[in-house]
Amino acid sequence: MHFSGNSSDTICALSTANGMAAIAVIRVSGEKALETGSRLFSKNLENVPTHTVHFGTISNEKGELIDEVLVTVLKGNKSFTGESTIEIACHGSTYIQQQILQLLVRSGCRLAEPGEFTFRAFMNGKMDLSQAEAIADLIHSESKKAHDVAILQMRGKFSGELKELRERLIHFASLVELELDFAEEDVEFADRTELKQLVKDVIAYIERLIRSFELGNAIKNGVPVAIVGAPNTGKSTLLNQLLNEDRAIVSSIAGTTRDVIEETLNIDGILFRLIDTAGIREQAEEIEALGIEKSKQKIQQAQIIVVMSDAAVETSTQLGHGTMPTAEAITWSAELKVQFPKKKIIVLANKIDLQKSEESSSAPEDIKVLGISAKEGIGIDAFKSWMVSQVQSGYDITQETIITNARHVSELEAASVALQQALNGLETQVSGDFVAMDIRQAMYHLGVITGQISEDDILANIFSKFCIGK
Amino acid sequence: MHFSGNSSDTICALSTANGMAAIAVIRVSGEKALETGSRLFSKNLENVPTHTVHFGTISNEKGELIDEVLVTVLKGNKSFTGESTIEIACHGSTYIQQQILQLLVRSGCRLAEPGEFTFRAFMNGKMDLSQAEAIADLIHSESKKAHDVAILQMRGKFSGELKELRERLIHFASLVELELDFAEEDVEFADRTELKQLVKDVIAYIERLIRSFELGNAIKNGVPVAIVGAPNTGKSTLLNQLLNEDRAIVSSIAGTTRDVIEETLNIDGILFRLIDTAGIREQAEEIEALGIEKSKQKIQQAQIIVVMSDAAVETSTQLGHGTMPTAEAITWSAELKVQFPKKKIIVLANKIDLQKSEESSSAPEDIKVLGISAKEGIGIDAFKSWMVSQVQSGYDITQETIITNARHVSELEAASVALQQALNGLETQVSGDFVAMDIRQAMYHLGVITGQISEDDILANIFSKFCIGK
Repeated sequence: MHFSGNSSDTICALSTANGMAAIAVIRVSGEKALETGSRLFSKNLENVPTHTVHFGTISNEKGELIDEVLVTVLKGNKSFTGESTIEIACHGSTYIQQQILQLLVRSGCRLAEPGEFTFRAFMNGKMDLSQAEAIADLIHSESKKAHDVAILQMRGKFSGELKELRERLIHFASLVELELDFAEEDVEFADRTELKQLVKDVIAYIERLIRSFELGNAIKNGVPVAIVGAPNTGKSTLLNQLLNEDRAIVSSIAGTTRDVIEETLNIDGILFRLIDTAGIREQAEEIEALGIEKSKQKIQQAQIIVVMSDAAVETSTQLGHGTMPTAEAITWSAELKVQFPKKKIIVLANKIDLQKSEESSSAPEDIKVLGISAKEGIGIDAFKSWMVSQVQSGYDITQETIITNARHVSELEAASVALQQALNGLETQVSGDFVAMDIRQAMYHLGVITGQISEDDILANIFSKFCIGK
Repeated sequence: MHFSGNSSDTICALSTANGMAAIAVIRVSGEKALETGSRLFSKNLENVPTHTVHFGTISNEKGELIDEVLVTVLKGNKSFTGESTIEIACHGSTYIQQQILQLLVRSGCRLAEPGEFTFRAFMNGKMDLSQAEAIADLIHSESKKAHDVAILQMRGKFSGELKELRERLIHFASLVELELDFAEEDVEFADRTELKQLVKDVIAYIERLIRSFELGNAIKNGVPVAIVGAPNTGKSTLLNQLLNEDRAIVSSIAGTTRDVIEETLNIDGILFRLIDTAGIREQAEEIEALGIEKSKQKIQQAQIIVVMSDAAVETSTQLGHGTMPTAEAITWSAELKVQFPKKKIIVLANKIDLQKSEESSSAPEDIKVLGISAKEGIGIDAFKSWMVSQVQSGYDITQETIITNARHVSELEAASVALQQALNGLETQVSGDFVAMDIRQAMYHLGVITGQISEDDILANIFSKFCIGK
């Protein structure tokens, strides 16, 4: 995070969404926020208590009235940024927004760069890097799970865990380095078996965090799903069944318009994104003949593949135009599974309400088959549960930290590699220097995540804990 | 202004613009705003002082954290609506906005209808109708003049003038009605000559207000301008010359994006809207042959017609492909003036920097001709001044009230008619009953503008001023 402007500048920006509205909020943060605000506002703000709101007017240098506004004063480290801040709630015309911003700039403020308020909050110790990142995630979250994961991270859950990991490693490194100081005396402050167990535990923990990224990424960005199948198997009916429920929830709140109707499903707070559904609909002809070459591209993007089949059609000989009987869908799905072993595949045997015989096709164990009636709504809940289970497997979102950030994963992976080296070092009894260096390396990467890297950490820990007066 | 919901409901709405942003503000107003807020927020808000801001969390009924928020408390009649209000500044994810609104609705609030907060402000006596209307105008204002006119109206300038007019009329009506009470005694409290002068003054004032609507409407909605002329006369160059200056001003403030590049010119704070410019550009071929039938439609919409001509081409015989010499442009403009006597027409003799001879075509007095060079920027300022002068003629926006609202015009017109009848009544010495009725009618219409209609006004005035104990 680099900002071109000076960090001692007083910065300003429109903090609410662009466009015309009842009100808009312009945020001003920095040393001169109160002084500048006082010059433009009809009332002096420098001596008012923090966390108070003031009604008045903003006028330009010529004394021309720009607007009647409500100004909120947040002083010193009690603000979001940790700097004196004023928030100007003006009428939400774009003209007024621009006039006030221009006036602030003419009065010595600088337009803030994206993320600069949060950066200042980080620089002023209001939050660490991972919390700052969580704020961005929170603002972008579109589903309950994405929101929940981001809010836990913003509230410092992940930071707390990293802090604990670092403390354990600091303790470890301190002991090893203390031994180095007393090298001539050949003391061993740390039990090697305990140390190894500690490193193993930390590695296991970090590896679990890394694995959670698959889920975290799905939660944050949505789970790509391809629904494929011949015409007449009921793809559209299924989509409508799923989408209508979802849309009904959204539209129950008037005033929150959904401008872009994109094909996303929100099931149990997880966002499923339908890959180019129109395309998939069109490619039905190809799938009919199992000529899936062209569809492969789309299937490749998917994490979940839903193969729609027609349970009311039993065999190929009975094949109507463009239908796909369940038995064939299962065979085809098994082939897909060979090609894409990591993807989750389900065969929906649709129209079970019309099925003539009770016999169901037998499927390989790794292909899930579910009888549904998209039209009648039968089996839809089971299908949804299956979808959710494919994403959540193995993690309890409400209890465990889920990594949603690729930067964190790469630092965690680097930390894991370093710790593995430390463990190898301990096992092959290399010099404590090297082990300590590996541990420092791991701590460095964990520190990069929260932005709290400081070589002084280790030193401070030694001196505070051991106090040997050397 | 009718609202379907009960006016004692506690209402809530997103007050900032739709969409994702750093923050969003949700406003809650009504009897139960503080109580409801206290239930959802991490801190009790009922006993905190008004105009204070509180940091905390909002959680749903299950205790699930929705967001960290800043809540502003505005109590009783010190809020915008005149009711207890809380403003929740949350992180600006659409998910969080929806969750908080849904939670508020589940907690007994109702989603506010458009304008309902302002309506409550009006109902609670925080402002009159014309001020409420000014707020809507202010939010929609796109230019300095539109903004300035709206803000004057919001601050009560127009209301104040109407109030004064009404007071003068009330005084008048009181006197006439008092005479009726003493009809048997045949007293005359009011000097008829003075009364007539008073009514004449008020009529003149109202008529001036009505006439200002032409300007007010231009300011509020922009002045439609058609730039016509053959190809190669420099229309595009002129447009770029004008638009680039304008855009440069807008884009000097980063962060305020102008999503839709529409052909509007902001000259001296007045918005000029170019009518379907693309169309006018395309129709150049037709204009070339002075076959203006199709262009007429577009010209008809315009308030100002700018005819571009080529000063460097002197006569028809020298006519290059698609150029229009100034002499022909003047002839054509004179014809236009006959067809559209109310429109302002200017001929721009472009390319004067290339003009070979000094002689300029003579134009009729009502056709303005201006030599410019769109390319070199010569004469552009004079052209802009002319444009502005065509709009502002006769009114000083900074000093005088300008009517921008068609509703006000129609009420003013009705008031004027009623006053004219009263004046006629005074002159033909009809019974005071009828004169008073006309005056009342005029007051009614003025009262409709501000929403302060009350028959009690006249009575109250009589009793307070005369106190004759009857």
